[in-house]
Amino acid sequence: MLKISHRGEVMPASPIRKLVPFSEAAKKRGTHVYHLNIGQPDIETPKQCLDAVKHYDMKVLEYSHSAGNESYRKKLVEYYAKNNIDVTPADIIVTTGGSEAILFGFMACLDAGDEVIIPEPFYANYNGFAIQADVNVVPISSDIETGFALPPIEDFEKAITSKTKAIVVCNPNNPTGYLYSAEEMEILKQIVIKHNLFLFADEAYREFCYSGKHVSAMHLKGAEQHVVLMDTISKRYSACGGRIGAFITKNKEVLNAAMKFAQARLSPPFYAQILGEAAVDLPDNYFDTTKAEYKLRRDTIVNRLNAMPGVFCPNVGGAFYAMARLPIDNCDRFCQWLLEDFTHEGATVMLAPGTGFYSTEGLGKNEVRLAYVLNVDSLNKAMDCLEAALKLYPGKTN
Amino acid sequence: MLKISHRGEVMPASPIRKLVPFSEAAKKRGTHVYHLNIGQPDIETPKQCLDAVKHYDMKVLEYSHSAGNESYRKKLVEYYAKNNIDVTPADIIVTTGGSEAILFGFMACLDAGDEVIIPEPFYANYNGFAIQADVNVVPISSDIETGFALPPIEDFEKAITSKTKAIVVCNPNNPTGYLYSAEEMEILKQIVIKHNLFLFADEAYREFCYSGKHVSAMHLKGAEQHVVLMDTISKRYSACGGRIGAFITKNKEVLNAAMKFAQARLSPPFYAQILGEAAVDLPDNYFDTTKAEYKLRRDTIVNRLNAMPGVFCPNVGGAFYAMARLPIDNCDRFCQWLLEDFTHEGATVMLAPGTGFYSTEGLGKNEVRLAYVLNVDSLNKAMDCLEAALKLYPGKTN
Repeated sequence: MLKISHRGEVMPASPIRKLVPFSEAAKKRGTHVYHLNIGQPDIETPKQCLDAVKHYDMKVLEYSHSAGNESYRKKLVEYYAKNNIDVTPADIIVTTGGSEAILFGFMACLDAGDEVIIPEPFYANYNGFAIQADVNVVPISSDIETGFALPPIEDFEKAITSKTKAIVVCNPNNPTGYLYSAEEMEILKQIVIKHNLFLFADEAYREFCYSGKHVSAMHLKGAEQHVVLMDTISKRYSACGGRIGAFITKNKEVLNAAMKFAQARLSPPFYAQILGEAAVDLPDNYFDTTKAEYKLRRDTIVNRLNAMPGVFCPNVGGAFYAMARLPIDNCDRFCQWLLEDFTHEGATVMLAPGTGFYSTEGLGKNEVRLAYVLNVDSLNKAMDCLEAALKLYPGKTN
Repeated sequence: MLKISHRGEVMPASPIRKLVPFSEAAKKRGTHVYHLNIGQPDIETPKQCLDAVKHYDMKVLEYSHSAGNESYRKKLVEYYAKNNIDVTPADIIVTTGGSEAILFGFMACLDAGDEVIIPEPFYANYNGFAIQADVNVVPISSDIETGFALPPIEDFEKAITSKTKAIVVCNPNNPTGYLYSAEEMEILKQIVIKHNLFLFADEAYREFCYSGKHVSAMHLKGAEQHVVLMDTISKRYSACGGRIGAFITKNKEVLNAAMKFAQARLSPPFYAQILGEAAVDLPDNYFDTTKAEYKLRRDTIVNRLNAMPGVFCPNVGGAFYAMARLPIDNCDRFCQWLLEDFTHEGATVMLAPGTGFYSTEGLGKNEVRLAYVLNVDSLNKAMDCLEAALKLYPGKTN
């Protein structure tokens, strides 16, 4: 018998995808499903950006440069400068989404058997890229009681071995919404310098900070050779389908290695580079409206959750996610039950089970991630569903 | 000191890219450079396809399904049916270019240390994907004297070890332009069945066959569970920058494994799926014009090459490449010399050194790949350059 690869076997299926058949069945039964399960924003993509693509004239849809169109990389320099991040076009490789930037980082910096430390809960797809790169993810747990703050430095020290080569920090965090403070970023800087590690910084949600200021890993003076920024325009401009991200580092050796992986796949997608280039020219107050909207949603969801008996949701500093602790036995069972066995006024809510974001077996069983990607009215209705569900769910724990 | 990964070190830089600085310098000196070095067609992308993107209305540029838009996969079924390839939407994962389809194939079917047999010369980027997947490429040499026909079955048998898990066939071939016959495809089928191997079929140039009929690996009855098709719209519709390809197999286990890698990177680019969907509705005679143009170019280039003393170029069955043997000491030196030290009537020609397409050290030293992606007039001028150059090159061998 022909066999698939071992990595093909151990590769995790998306923890969210598993529930899709149940959500589809619910919809077929006529149930309205409020999707709080994925980070697909409902915010409109800026018209200027969509129009830039519509009005772009070309005869031949050619490969772009493997590092991305030069005109786009130049524009990105402007964008980063506005965020006090000092880069040149030569520091940037335009990638196919943030996903490819993560893969390039793992491939260029880590070898088979190397270890990468990631505070958990973490973005589930880091696991997938780690398996492709044959790298071991070493989780250190952050705690819902502290709002998922950076774990204490001793936890990092304990986790570091001779095989540790990098730390991943996602800031503001998906799935927790936690915004790392300047002090926490400074701690990370000291760890990576002391132990000679790479710091992979996933800053997809940079603009969406509600309580405090974003400190980029690129701001960490003295750590320039350690930091690899993995960025994307997906959430920033609600352009997820464009698949445009960026791999950025001041470390020339790392950039040159990543560039070889970029050359092998020839080029990033052309169209959305045009969109991304136009996005840099959006008015400086562009994010104000989006941010205000997300903040309102955050307040809605956090307040509603904490008003439910037995539910705890720490306030969220950024991104558009929240992790909540629910009075339930098993979040996978609960999320499936919501889709299979429950309706409230003809509707239900789809959530992402917390377990999918933890690497340590057994953690996150009573947690769920909520993406507040619906308007306040829908969010309230989704919270009505959740509130009603928690009264009925047979696996309720208190 | 922070060190990049070993794979980042051994990852080959693009063999073509190495010459780019010399070509840029030549252009700065005012020399016209005829680019026969890369497979970027000059053929216009069909207007209907570009218009489909321009006229597509959306409010939010959302993620598509991880396997690609369902409407596009349904359209692809029609496209494949026209090529007597019987697939369903469920057999297809839309990928980010053919590149990602190759990577998914290697990741889903092969483990670290596994071996994949590839007749050389071969598309250089297979090496890059093999390094990412930590897989060993085992070359078996095809011979310019036979026009780069499939190596004899004994050569495959000799190369097969307990670690061999797959064979890659690129048909029509890049870089040789060789079109495998029905008999050769049948031999490959027997080998993969007998030795229980996967057959990875790269058919990017399916439409461009000039002497004979294309036999797809998907036509091989009885090998359905072995075959993985790695496809792309890049060359077909001159849409290289769109980055849309497809991973197709009847083997459900392989498809499910590849799907997990597809989920990790979320989705393929949205825009060019619209373009690809429109392309399926092009009139059935769409390829006639393009094919006639390429055939004319092929005839031009093959005739011109074989008329030069000491040059041999086998006639080419498909794609838009030819490998020629030149009377030179070293193709890398020659290609660089063409850009650095030579002009003919203010122009020179950029070629891809043959060595970059061989895995066996020392092979291809007197060969070059020519991509006939310029019109006949430019091709003739490029051939004038080459002819003049061969009279002057200090490393001429006869």
